[in-house]
Amino acid sequence: MKAQTLVRELFEKSETKIVMLVADGLGGLPMEPGGKTELETAHTPNLDALARIGTSGSSIPVLPGITPGSGPGHLGLFGYDPLEFRIGRGALEATGIGFELGPQDVAARGNFCTLDAAGCIRDRRAGRIPSEESVKVVNLLKQVRIEGIQVFVEPVKEHRFVVVFRGPNLEGAVADTDPQAVGVPPLMPMETLPGGKRTAMVAAEFVRQATEILSSQPKANGLVLRGFAAKPNLPSYLDLYGLRAAAIAVYPMYKGLAQLAGMSLVGKAQSLDDQVLELKKCWNEFDFFFLHFKYTDSTGEDGDFAGKVTRIEELDRMIPRITSLKPDVLVVTGDHSTPSLMRSHSWHPVPTLLVASQCRPDGCERFGERDCLRGGLGMFEAKHLMLLAMAHAGRLGKYGA
Amino acid sequence: MKAQTLVRELFEKSETKIVMLVADGLGGLPMEPGGKTELETAHTPNLDALARIGTSGSSIPVLPGITPGSGPGHLGLFGYDPLEFRIGRGALEATGIGFELGPQDVAARGNFCTLDAAGCIRDRRAGRIPSEESVKVVNLLKQVRIEGIQVFVEPVKEHRFVVVFRGPNLEGAVADTDPQAVGVPPLMPMETLPGGKRTAMVAAEFVRQATEILSSQPKANGLVLRGFAAKPNLPSYLDLYGLRAAAIAVYPMYKGLAQLAGMSLVGKAQSLDDQVLELKKCWNEFDFFFLHFKYTDSTGEDGDFAGKVTRIEELDRMIPRITSLKPDVLVVTGDHSTPSLMRSHSWHPVPTLLVASQCRPDGCERFGERDCLRGGLGMFEAKHLMLLAMAHAGRLGKYGA
Repeated sequence: MKAQTLVRELFEKSETKIVMLVADGLGGLPMEPGGKTELETAHTPNLDALARIGTSGSSIPVLPGITPGSGPGHLGLFGYDPLEFRIGRGALEATGIGFELGPQDVAARGNFCTLDAAGCIRDRRAGRIPSEESVKVVNLLKQVRIEGIQVFVEPVKEHRFVVVFRGPNLEGAVADTDPQAVGVPPLMPMETLPGGKRTAMVAAEFVRQATEILSSQPKANGLVLRGFAAKPNLPSYLDLYGLRAAAIAVYPMYKGLAQLAGMSLVGKAQSLDDQVLELKKCWNEFDFFFLHFKYTDSTGEDGDFAGKVTRIEELDRMIPRITSLKPDVLVVTGDHSTPSLMRSHSWHPVPTLLVASQCRPDGCERFGERDCLRGGLGMFEAKHLMLLAMAHAGRLGKYGA
Repeated sequence: MKAQTLVRELFEKSETKIVMLVADGLGGLPMEPGGKTELETAHTPNLDALARIGTSGSSIPVLPGITPGSGPGHLGLFGYDPLEFRIGRGALEATGIGFELGPQDVAARGNFCTLDAAGCIRDRRAGRIPSEESVKVVNLLKQVRIEGIQVFVEPVKEHRFVVVFRGPNLEGAVADTDPQAVGVPPLMPMETLPGGKRTAMVAAEFVRQATEILSSQPKANGLVLRGFAAKPNLPSYLDLYGLRAAAIAVYPMYKGLAQLAGMSLVGKAQSLDDQVLELKKCWNEFDFFFLHFKYTDSTGEDGDFAGKVTRIEELDRMIPRITSLKPDVLVVTGDHSTPSLMRSHSWHPVPTLLVASQCRPDGCERFGERDCLRGGLGMFEAKHLMLLAMAHAGRLGKYGA
């Protein structure tokens, strides 16, 4: 039996509140061997105080050594096995720009390209046309009409866009049309499974009309489509945990991921300060609150060690405002590590902290990678974190007699 | 491949002896934040000495956050994945009163109830009639005769009893007849899968005759049946591990669980002292010895922190008598935690100790929850403990060349 089947069987009603504060890319590395990580360098008196009364541990996002993207990273934290549930690239891209996918939708990522007179690809990124220009070209594509299908085309950045086909019997089983080479024409959309046939036909018709519309463009006179994917079918937080869940995030990607798990998007926060205000406002309406803090990841991606330290300290200062709401369970974690040293996501375990009245003390004195190694949660797979949160919230009954 | 398939493939003959001492509900919590747990408070010089020469760790009974009942808790310790093997409620209840289930049996839990003149339930527990009265009513039900079926009815406590149907083609796939409400009649037994049809018919006939027999009773004039279940099909210790296994327990529930795993019940011990005497007596006849100590759980359930400490010290004093037998492997663990603070089973990991000549030292100086966090067994799922015991006993061959 899977953990999700179990939790659905065992969850119990309660009035308790759970806050999950996700500092994106929280885990780090020292800049020199034996040094301190970003989190260990930061002055975090509030998080350290929580470490003393809570239980710490190290979360493995997917499997040891596996570096996750934002999708699998958050799926794990939300309790969905990231090896079982996959969010296709197209669906993730649509989610990331705030497009709310419906059950009849198939999304794909699009790249504008430059075709030569023979229809072969000369530039796979259409000279990386600027976003402003790309928006105009995308708008032209809104003229495409396909019978029985609604077509949405949305710009992303530079030469990239998203296309969503909405209609009956569409499936994501269609191969990329990007040949990953120049000097050859884009591939025809082809189904990879019989169920993708209708989508392949719809995509082919889209490409036909689009190529005609774009024919007079100097650079973006062609396109390729990649990562066809339907909305992933995730059981909702309410169904799975009996939790009314709120997502308080700034960036569309994380709002989208939360929405896929059936969370309600709350407020229009533009800063951590706004997010905590929103948390307070909606406190009585929900049982679970997902707060997403982006900047620990983006500073890490920039290789900005000092910046990441500053962002962690900013997060720390916000803690008393969250604890003043007296959540029954407060979890502080990340979806993966983003060491400034690597300027990228990494596979390293993520420092994690759980605070609740029935926490077993583990002797941890502060919140940091090395301390978490001695923590009472041990080293655990992220997908089990929600079980721990539910248990400490008194929301899980006993398994078996 | 599952661990059980692996161990069956790899086990080797040996003369070594393994003792598994299970202190039920061993793990605990401090009564005040940052304080000591029951085990940390107890004076345990013998266990501490073992911690210095053995390897310690923290056992997760099922999954992080999952609180097990006694059934799943023990299945894990015995090496059966508690998410794969489940003991149905009826089977566990029968096991708990010492009824030895056979392969043709289906057991159900029964509750006497009070019916009104129209046959609707007025009191779902028949006024919680005292056990002495219930025994008499249960005896009346022994008159029930069903063709081709043996019927056993056994009292449990107050309004509760167990019924076992024995005969060919019986399966547990029958829904509860308890409508979980008053003012409505009990439900008819209905199969939930086609295989349960014959059992449903047998149960219906039992209910028909029983209701007639009970019609003149003032309170217990009706009954409902719940948790229909056959004996779970567990591979035996001998088959799985090549171990001749003995169970030395005081309470029927734990004897029953051991018996389901194919262990032999040894002696009629009524105390830990008796148990150790029995252990000595049967030492040459078996390879594996399961000793169950109940009182660390029952004091925890009573919220009796000091009592639990005393019981742990009692257990500690018994250790030299066990080690004097020179077991090749001695495991001390629990099936789950029962913190006095919570007065119930909990999900917290269970302090565990393994002592053998090939233990890798881990620097642990005493046996307690915090120390175990730094132990060489790390944090592990209980279902893997038997693999460790077998390995340290020199009873597991190499996997692959």
